[in-house]
Amino acid sequence: MTGFPQVMAPVLTPFRDDLSCDGRSFVQFCRWLASKDMGLAIFGTNSEANSLTVEERLELLARVCEAGIAPSRLVPGTGACAIGDSVRLSKAAAAAGCAGVLMLPPFYYKQVSDEGLFAAFAEVIERVGDSRLKILLYHIPQVSGIALSHGLIERLIKRYPDTIAGIKDSSGDLEFTRTTIKRFPGFQVYAGSDALLLATLQAGGAGCISATANVNPAAIVRLRKEWQGADAEALQAGLAQIRKTFEAFPTIAALKAAAAHFGQTPDFARVRPPLTALPQQNARKLITALIDLDFEMDGLNDTLSRH
Amino acid sequence: MTGFPQVMAPVLTPFRDDLSCDGRSFVQFCRWLASKDMGLAIFGTNSEANSLTVEERLELLARVCEAGIAPSRLVPGTGACAIGDSVRLSKAAAAAGCAGVLMLPPFYYKQVSDEGLFAAFAEVIERVGDSRLKILLYHIPQVSGIALSHGLIERLIKRYPDTIAGIKDSSGDLEFTRTTIKRFPGFQVYAGSDALLLATLQAGGAGCISATANVNPAAIVRLRKEWQGADAEALQAGLAQIRKTFEAFPTIAALKAAAAHFGQTPDFARVRPPLTALPQQNARKLITALIDLDFEMDGLNDTLSRH
Repeated sequence: MTGFPQVMAPVLTPFRDDLSCDGRSFVQFCRWLASKDMGLAIFGTNSEANSLTVEERLELLARVCEAGIAPSRLVPGTGACAIGDSVRLSKAAAAAGCAGVLMLPPFYYKQVSDEGLFAAFAEVIERVGDSRLKILLYHIPQVSGIALSHGLIERLIKRYPDTIAGIKDSSGDLEFTRTTIKRFPGFQVYAGSDALLLATLQAGGAGCISATANVNPAAIVRLRKEWQGADAEALQAGLAQIRKTFEAFPTIAALKAAAAHFGQTPDFARVRPPLTALPQQNARKLITALIDLDFEMDGLNDTLSRH
Repeated sequence: MTGFPQVMAPVLTPFRDDLSCDGRSFVQFCRWLASKDMGLAIFGTNSEANSLTVEERLELLARVCEAGIAPSRLVPGTGACAIGDSVRLSKAAAAAGCAGVLMLPPFYYKQVSDEGLFAAFAEVIERVGDSRLKILLYHIPQVSGIALSHGLIERLIKRYPDTIAGIKDSSGDLEFTRTTIKRFPGFQVYAGSDALLLATLQAGGAGCISATANVNPAAIVRLRKEWQGADAEALQAGLAQIRKTFEAFPTIAALKAAAAHFGQTPDFARVRPPLTALPQQNARKLITALIDLDFEMDGLNDTLSRH
């Protein structure tokens, strides 16, 4: 249960002009992130994973593995509304030797009981039936509409101690994060944003899975490594400027606009509906602000243009 | 655009003990509802459709059609988070000659723009590319987390006048229903609950798609037929007793418990996680209350036991 990367990006998913997945660019973007020592939480919220079909996710996972990217770096999102879909994705991830999976609860039905959520996770685990499966629970109530309670987490850890490895806490509620860390020793708690990386580590957490890790990987990796050093507060503060610049816009579209600009790959800006790309004027504002901060995505252009 | 049934049930989906779909019981339950002159909104919220994979829905649709149930009675739910899934389901429904489809917006990402939602619906319509496709938009913000605005509806009707046929308004907000009816003449507005059937019809609406139409079809069909008669208010009041009895419990589990009891098919009570079946004690309370109201599901046992 110590096999997860310490910081991970919910990897952006590039699309062609017919909105199909651009597998080649996706693999190259994964390579670029890996070259920065970033873990790859492919198929997260910021990956637009819930706008992909199961087949599309399986195809992209296969391509990344075939490309020789180490599966120990991969933590694909495999949660879905339908248990059958979660099982198929999780089986594929476990069989590919991925470090683990990031699992949303089923998120259509609201106000469901802990008993029902427990049964949903249990059903997936039992059907996958693979001891290699390691799960990070995905707590993002403001998007999924489903909060994971400490009672539920406790019950899952007790029943599946070798499978339920940790949680991505995207609630933004540092108190919840701290309580989770204290209450479940050995359980790996990841902040859902680099904004809370240092605080999470100081509380005994494992790291973060952060949208901006897609564009600012080196600085986040550095803070993870040097968080006990004298510069930790300054490194954390440095992340804030970049993050706030992105968060002034719809985040996924802004991240993709930056990858498009700094990777010199305009197609990368494309998103799938119901999201919309940044209007040109906003994209220009974003890029200007980033350039003012001496922001760069070092080597991305080279990596994306290689075949 | 006048081809939809006037009242429809979001048809309950029975499961076997391994939680797989029980296609035979599903077809028989459809037959029973059809024998009461009920339209079949298969794969709605109360069908647990979002807990089914696309493949499971395609298989059930095929079985219903093969069983000889008139496609003119069918309005399958085909909305999904991923456009590709919506396209596949909607194509199958159009090809099967269904009266139309009930389409949720993509519901994972929240706070999306009308422009993004328009693009999502447009993409599905364009890719299906079948003039037989007739869409009821599905407005259920308290579950999907996505409200469909009048501006969005207007834009969709203007662009796809032959495809965007109406809406299921499950918001419970009668003012929204009335405004929708007034603002878009010819647009077919369905109440999301039989509680608002008479009020919706009086405002110029088309009918209802109601959870309790699964268990109380004859009385709802009767009110739809006789809504301008002297007994309309009494008929509407009569529906309330039954509905409230179900709504005292988690509704889907309660509807299935009733079908299990009155259909003498205990397996029908099963639900898929994250939902949970009624505890025995609550199931007994429900059935006792229903019997006190002289409630019955006339002929269901016979239909379910026929092969």
